[in-house]
Amino acid sequence: MSTTISTARAAAWLDERDNFLILTHRRPDGDTLGCAGALAKGLTEHGKTAYILYNPEITPRYLRFVEDCIAPDDFSPEYVISVDTATVDLFPKISKKYEDSVSLCIDHHKSNTFYAELSCLDAGAASCGEIVYDILIALSGSISSTVAERLYVALSTDTGCFAFGNTTAKTLRTASFLIEAGAPHVKLNKQLFRTKTRSRLEIEGILISQLEYMFDGKVAIATITRDMMEATGAGEDDLDDIAAIPGSVEGVCVGITIRELSSVHDCKISVRTRASHPYDAGVICAHFGGGGHKLAAGSSINKTADEVKQMLFDLLSELYFTAK
Amino acid sequence: MSTTISTARAAAWLDERDNFLILTHRRPDGDTLGCAGALAKGLTEHGKTAYILYNPEITPRYLRFVEDCIAPDDFSPEYVISVDTATVDLFPKISKKYEDSVSLCIDHHKSNTFYAELSCLDAGAASCGEIVYDILIALSGSISSTVAERLYVALSTDTGCFAFGNTTAKTLRTASFLIEAGAPHVKLNKQLFRTKTRSRLEIEGILISQLEYMFDGKVAIATITRDMMEATGAGEDDLDDIAAIPGSVEGVCVGITIRELSSVHDCKISVRTRASHPYDAGVICAHFGGGGHKLAAGSSINKTADEVKQMLFDLLSELYFTAK
Repeated sequence: MSTTISTARAAAWLDERDNFLILTHRRPDGDTLGCAGALAKGLTEHGKTAYILYNPEITPRYLRFVEDCIAPDDFSPEYVISVDTATVDLFPKISKKYEDSVSLCIDHHKSNTFYAELSCLDAGAASCGEIVYDILIALSGSISSTVAERLYVALSTDTGCFAFGNTTAKTLRTASFLIEAGAPHVKLNKQLFRTKTRSRLEIEGILISQLEYMFDGKVAIATITRDMMEATGAGEDDLDDIAAIPGSVEGVCVGITIRELSSVHDCKISVRTRASHPYDAGVICAHFGGGGHKLAAGSSINKTADEVKQMLFDLLSELYFTAK
Repeated sequence: MSTTISTARAAAWLDERDNFLILTHRRPDGDTLGCAGALAKGLTEHGKTAYILYNPEITPRYLRFVEDCIAPDDFSPEYVISVDTATVDLFPKISKKYEDSVSLCIDHHKSNTFYAELSCLDAGAASCGEIVYDILIALSGSISSTVAERLYVALSTDTGCFAFGNTTAKTLRTASFLIEAGAPHVKLNKQLFRTKTRSRLEIEGILISQLEYMFDGKVAIATITRDMMEATGAGEDDLDDIAAIPGSVEGVCVGITIRELSSVHDCKISVRTRASHPYDAGVICAHFGGGGHKLAAGSSINKTADEVKQMLFDLLSELYFTAK
């Protein structure tokens, strides 16, 4: 049975203990890595021994925010902490052995399964970084510029630089504290939000030029083929938030991205809808065995992109639109 | 001679007077219109009579934030206030008659020429909206959700939704206050930053597919021709911040956008450089008779795009690169 604790209580718990190992989630993003890097650094600066378990999926984009805190092979922790990880199913293989022995889970996902002995949760937080900030301030009264930098990475990446719908007044207030504490936000914004790889830009260019509209422009469908990935040299890192593009077109209520995965018969669909319309991305994806929320959902389908498109057309005709 | 006053003093000045006319600048953006709409509304809610002088260049994007405050034809103001306007050269024609009678100028541009009797300036503010916020809080102690919405438009548009280099801790703190006061930031972010017209998206797609690289990928050049504008149906409103695209490519130090204007022999160049490099956009554009800053500059040239490209290649070879 997990006990839910406040950030003040989490800070006190950390203060009374030592030798921490911090776990991040699979396909690690800026929030889990920023939190891990900030927590490890903040605890170290507070006189503790704290390391991050190496996550083999760390991408070059975020490596520098954690690399000075990676646990040496012979480190034997007394307490294991997870950050930004809703369930043990999201543990990378290397973390699996700690599944039943997580002492503290710090997270902001509503779907958290309370797998840790203690859970410090705030489902209203846009990023886990906001919770880690409160804990470190409760622990030490202030944070270093290095910790501020890492927490800024957490907050800003999970909110698309404060543009996504999850952003709250608290997110912005915390970000302002981080800048005052020395987070190099100008440099980070440029690197994280105003820089694209050539591959990313090229795949965006192709995607845009091939965007298909249905139902009087209310639906837009983008297709990312294996050929496009190969031609542009794009990797997984280059597709971040790309599913937002079809839904970003003025007048589009349902934006759909179809992506070929291991073969042309193995596709993934991502659906995005507008808050102001009745269209439900979760309902659409449920028809394909997938799931998600009203505004964003996804599914895998063993069909070709063209077959998927036809199925979507039929489904959308049935659910929402008069076929034209 | 202009007197510089604090936001508290500006609030007291407003409190003691009545019948205000508010002026916006040419090619009005979210900051000048958001400020005008917020100030007019805030003063009205404070029991004053305050209107905005109709600016014929207001675009549909921002109209709804000012339209309830447009001055009736027969309004005869006692005091004229300008917002976000550095010099009277930026007045639209309709405001010219007030050039010598502006009582109060509220602005955040370093280049302000102190044309008003009183100037309430903060060159460190990312947006004029932050200054108007301080004034209205000093005046009334709080703001309505309508005023908060308009100020959020001002802050967010002038900072690219808090991603541009001008964003400060204070910008984010003020934005958090605006959200707490009821600014519908989720809806506004979606409309202002996550929605593109089909024309904009199409012109981006073409621009990306035709991006040219020089000097080992350190320079990227985009060309926007009259044909592209016509083919996509793009207007002036659709080109906002488009000059940032070539400079956003990883590895690019100098991003250049060449745009054909009235004819193929009438081009405008926009140059963007990275803070971390020695390249100076202002120096580059000065060679063409234009100007600007180290990071962003522009110029007009009576040459074709191809001629301009050759001139840029020669100039950049001379200034910074070994021709290859």
